[in-house]
Amino acid sequence: MEERLEKQMAFSLEIDKEKNVFRQTHLSGGGRNENDAEHAWHMAVMAYILREYANEETDIAKVMLMCLIHDIVEIDAGDTYAYDEENKKTQKEREEAAKKRIFSLLPDDQRDELTALFDEFEQNETAEARYAHAMDNLQPLILNDSNDGGDWKQHGVFAGQVYGRQKGTKLGSEKLYELTDRIIKKHIERGNLKTVPGKGL
Amino acid sequence: MEERLEKQMAFSLEIDKEKNVFRQTHLSGGGRNENDAEHAWHMAVMAYILREYANEETDIAKVMLMCLIHDIVEIDAGDTYAYDEENKKTQKEREEAAKKRIFSLLPDDQRDELTALFDEFEQNETAEARYAHAMDNLQPLILNDSNDGGDWKQHGVFAGQVYGRQKGTKLGSEKLYELTDRIIKKHIERGNLKTVPGKGL
Repeated sequence: MEERLEKQMAFSLEIDKEKNVFRQTHLSGGGRNENDAEHAWHMAVMAYILREYANEETDIAKVMLMCLIHDIVEIDAGDTYAYDEENKKTQKEREEAAKKRIFSLLPDDQRDELTALFDEFEQNETAEARYAHAMDNLQPLILNDSNDGGDWKQHGVFAGQVYGRQKGTKLGSEKLYELTDRIIKKHIERGNLKTVPGKGL
Repeated sequence: MEERLEKQMAFSLEIDKEKNVFRQTHLSGGGRNENDAEHAWHMAVMAYILREYANEETDIAKVMLMCLIHDIVEIDAGDTYAYDEENKKTQKEREEAAKKRIFSLLPDDQRDELTALFDEFEQNETAEARYAHAMDNLQPLILNDSNDGGDWKQHGVFAGQVYGRQKGTKLGSEKLYELTDRIIKKHIERGNLKTVPGKGL
């Protein structure tokens, strides 16, 4: 088998491992934790279905691909929970090393292409990256909403922390941020999200 | 919330169930069975990486979306193993009913769009559908190959059955069919696939 195809197949097999990277989010129905491959698949389908709500015109193929590959680095770096401040300190470094190793399994041109796409997502400075981030926020939110905020309750998360993360959705989609805001407010009312007494959120 | 967005969110939540539809294929390393959402994600990434081997020019965004949604009907209809002839008799009917129910959660225009895309995959008459089918064949093949043909051994599958299914790959990609053929021959030699004595395959 020629080297190019051999490299592409090595990468194709390697990414199977993403199915073993489990997140804090639980599937709807409160069952098991979701893994990164499932999350990426769900985000990509939602990105297509909800594309009319993106703030800016986007290349939807690029958005979908960005969603599909954005967590591949977690094969080595592991999942970093959105509200785990300690682990977030080393996240960047761990993910950079993983990015180099995993995308280098590909032929050089595809290594460069996927690395650039991954970096574009991380830098969050294009219409596609901003909308893909909105999906990265919204997808676990709807699962957690369907489970009556179970993941927040389990970790004792404050409403302010959720707003801190979810505010990025506004950059990708004002419309979906309105929906997000309604969901968060509902869970504050229900006591599923903690608030600081006398300090609002 | 207006009706359109409400429907789109209902569909987005419903498809979470695809993560609970398990296939006969095992993850690389011989661990647990793979589920449909993981399979769809893996196919879509492979479709992008290997697109240069498609026999015909394809709209890769359409191929990826086709890969991502092609098994959504199995939320209701269940997975039908490629070599389960009994279950395959009722597969079409079960999947038609599922298609109607699940895509009808969407607004009418998106219901029609996704139904048409699903039908296009099933009918296998366009360049995109043929190449997507090649991915549907190749993705489980590489997992099974990495597990020394464990899924075939478990079910006592004949080489002729595997060729019967995998021959479709040739319609989507001659190049990837050559790879497929080499993999199948290797597993015949190793005794992982059964053959009929005196009758070749």
